[in-house]
Amino acid sequence: MSGGVVEMINYKTLFSEDVACFRSSPIREVLKNVDISKIYSFSGGYPAPETFPLKSLNSLTQRVVDKYGDKTLQYGDTRGVPEFRKAIAERYDLDVEKVQITSSSQQGIDVCARILLNPGDVVLCENPCYLGALNSFYSYQAEVVGLDLSQSFEASQRRVEEVEKLLAEGKKIKFFYVIPDFQNPGGHTLSLAQRAEIVSLARRFGFLIVEDSPYREIRFEGEDVASIYSIAPDITLHLGSISKVFAPGLRLGWVIAEPELLNTIFVCKQSLDLCPNILSQYLALEFLESGELDKNLLESRKIYKRKRDKLESLLEKYLPEGSSWTQPQGGLFIFVTLPESLDVTALFPEAIKRGVAYVPGSYFFTDGSHRNTMRLSFSFIDEEKMETGMEILSKLLKENL
Amino acid sequence: MSGGVVEMINYKTLFSEDVACFRSSPIREVLKNVDISKIYSFSGGYPAPETFPLKSLNSLTQRVVDKYGDKTLQYGDTRGVPEFRKAIAERYDLDVEKVQITSSSQQGIDVCARILLNPGDVVLCENPCYLGALNSFYSYQAEVVGLDLSQSFEASQRRVEEVEKLLAEGKKIKFFYVIPDFQNPGGHTLSLAQRAEIVSLARRFGFLIVEDSPYREIRFEGEDVASIYSIAPDITLHLGSISKVFAPGLRLGWVIAEPELLNTIFVCKQSLDLCPNILSQYLALEFLESGELDKNLLESRKIYKRKRDKLESLLEKYLPEGSSWTQPQGGLFIFVTLPESLDVTALFPEAIKRGVAYVPGSYFFTDGSHRNTMRLSFSFIDEEKMETGMEILSKLLKENL
Repeated sequence: MSGGVVEMINYKTLFSEDVACFRSSPIREVLKNVDISKIYSFSGGYPAPETFPLKSLNSLTQRVVDKYGDKTLQYGDTRGVPEFRKAIAERYDLDVEKVQITSSSQQGIDVCARILLNPGDVVLCENPCYLGALNSFYSYQAEVVGLDLSQSFEASQRRVEEVEKLLAEGKKIKFFYVIPDFQNPGGHTLSLAQRAEIVSLARRFGFLIVEDSPYREIRFEGEDVASIYSIAPDITLHLGSISKVFAPGLRLGWVIAEPELLNTIFVCKQSLDLCPNILSQYLALEFLESGELDKNLLESRKIYKRKRDKLESLLEKYLPEGSSWTQPQGGLFIFVTLPESLDVTALFPEAIKRGVAYVPGSYFFTDGSHRNTMRLSFSFIDEEKMETGMEILSKLLKENL
Repeated sequence: MSGGVVEMINYKTLFSEDVACFRSSPIREVLKNVDISKIYSFSGGYPAPETFPLKSLNSLTQRVVDKYGDKTLQYGDTRGVPEFRKAIAERYDLDVEKVQITSSSQQGIDVCARILLNPGDVVLCENPCYLGALNSFYSYQAEVVGLDLSQSFEASQRRVEEVEKLLAEGKKIKFFYVIPDFQNPGGHTLSLAQRAEIVSLARRFGFLIVEDSPYREIRFEGEDVASIYSIAPDITLHLGSISKVFAPGLRLGWVIAEPELLNTIFVCKQSLDLCPNILSQYLALEFLESGELDKNLLESRKIYKRKRDKLESLLEKYLPEGSSWTQPQGGLFIFVTLPESLDVTALFPEAIKRGVAYVPGSYFFTDGSHRNTMRLSFSFIDEEKMETGMEILSKLLKENL
C-alpha cells in the first residue's frame, strides 16, 4: 500500500475484532421506524412516567444552584460528587470508599465486563437474561452460558456439572451476572437459597458475582430477600440505579464493591468519560436528602402494584387457555409462557403492524429458544390503554393458535 | 481448584489483559488529597466558571419541562434526542445521520478507540498530546506514536519515513488523533498546510483521523482554519463538545462521521450506557435554540482573551530568562518551555506544597521527555489570584535554576 493512494477506504478493515461480536438490540431494530407513541406498548423497560417528579424539577434545580453554585456545572470527581457518593453509601450503610458513581447502571455492567473479560472468557447468567447485559458481554468476545436456576437437588447438581465441564474445557469463568430481584425479563425474585447457591458456586470455583439491582426498591408486595452483596461483599459487585426511583433520563447508577476492585473501575472510568453527569448527581442528592425520593417511592410502588394488578386481570381474561405467567412482587415485568404452538418471535412484526408491542421472550435466552414466551411490561403503558392493547394481542394470538 | 473452597479471592487473577495497560492520570494522583480550592491553580483544564449560565439554569429547566414534559426524564434514543441531534447537525450544516450524541467528548474518544483498536495497533498523534486520549488508547493495549508536526520539508520527510517504518514492522496504524485548534496542552493551532498533510498521510497509508475539537469555538483572536473534517469527511471522525460553550458538568459531546462508522458506534453505545443524559440534552437544545449559547459565547471569548492577556503579561514579568511560551488565539492553555536545567516534573510536588499548581509538560509526551516544560491554564483561576500564583511559581523556579 505504501506509496499508493487509497481512493476509497473500507472501514471494515479498520475495525477492532470486538466489532464482529457487537449485537444490536433486536427490539430497537424492529422499533426503529415505528412511532411508539401510536402503539399499545408492553415492550420497553421504561418506568411509569407518572412516577417522575416532573413538577419538582424546577424547585430541585433552584435549590441545587443555591447550595452548590458553579460546582453544579463544572467538571467533578471521577468517583462521583463526594456528597452524592456519601449519601448513597449511607443509604447502604457502607463506607464511602465502596461506592463508585456511574453514568447509568448499564455503564456499571459494561465497566465490570471491561475490567474482567478477555476474549473467550465465560460469563454465567440466569437463562433468560437481560439483553443489555448479554450484548455488553458479547461485545468483549465473551462466551455467555445461561443456567437454569430452578430449585431442586438435581438442578443444583446439573449446575455444578456444567461449571465443572466449562473448567475442564480450559475456560475461564469470570463472573456470574444476575438480577435477583424482579428479574428482567422474568419478573421473578430469587429465594435466599438460590442466592446462597450462586455465592457458594462462586466461592467454590473462584469467580465473582455481578449483582444488578435496578428494581429492588420497587417492591410492592412481600418481604425483601437479602441482597447477594450483603451475603458475600468480598466477591460481589453490586449495581444500583436511580432510573426506577427518580428518573432514567438522568443516567445515574453506582457500583458497590471492595475498594481494590473499585480502584480499577475508577481508572477505567477516567478514560471512559472523565466523570458522571454533575448536575444530575446534585439533583439526585437533593431529591434523596430532602426525603422526596422516599416519599415518591411510596407513591410509585402503589402505582406499579395497581398496574400489575390490572395487567394480570387482563391476562386472565384475554390469554389463550394453557398460558401461564410469573407473578412479580415488584419491578416492571411479567413473563408469559403461551401454548407451545405459538411462535411469538415470528409474530412480533405482525403485532407491531397491528399496533401492539411486547418483547419476544426468545431474545433473552442465550440460545434463542422459548419462542412461545414473551415479556410484558406493565409500567410504561397508560392504565386506560391496557385493555385495548390486550384485545389486539389476544386476537392475534388466537388467530395463530 | 474444583471441589476445594477458595478462601480469599485474588482479584488480579480475574482482571482482563487491558487492565495491565490502564494508566491513571498522574495529575489526579498528585492532587488526590489536595484541597484544590486552597491552591493557586493553573493546572486543570476547567473552563472559566464565570462563563457558566448558572443564572439561566432555572429558566432553562422550566422551559424544557413545559415544552417536553415527561420526555425530559425518560429513557431516550441511543443516537441522541432527535431535536438535539438535528440542532447540532444544523450548526455544522450536515445531515442528521452524521451525528451521534455522546456522554462527553471523552466518551467520543473512547468509543473511537473501542471500535478501532486491537492490542498492538498503532495510534499516531501529535507530540505532546492530550493525556485523556493517550490513556484511553493505552487502555486498549495500543501503541501510541507521537510525531513532531513542525513545518519543514525535512520534518515532513521524517514523518513519512516514520509511518513507513511502522508499516514495515508489520504494525497496523488505525488513526491519527489530533486537536487542531488551540491544542491541549500546546495551545497552538495547526495551519491549513499541517492539516492537509495529516489528511494526505491518512489517504496515502489508509488510516482514519480522529479530530478532537472541544476548543474550536473559543477563538478570541485570528481567523478560523478549516476543520480536518471539512477537508476529508470520509476519513474523519470529528468530536465536538458542549463543555466549553455551555457546561462540562452536563457531560455532552458528539461524534460526526459517515453513517457507516456511526452505525458501529451506535451499536457500541447501546451497551456502553444505552443513551446520553436526556435532561442535559434538552437543556443544551434550549440553550442553543434560544440563541443564549451564541450570546454567551461572545462574552466567554472576551473573558478568555482577558485572562490570556493577563497570564501572558505575568509570564513576561515573572518567568526566568530563557523561557518561551506559545501564544494561543483561543482555548484554555499556554505551553511554557523553561531553561533546560529546570526539571518542573520533579518540582511538581514541591509546587503543590507551596500552593501553586501547573501540569508538567512531560506528562503529555509519549516518551515522558521535555521535563523543562509545563502547561498553564488561564481559564479556571480567578484573575485576581493569577499574580500571587505566578509569584510563588517564579520564586520556586528561580531557586532551582
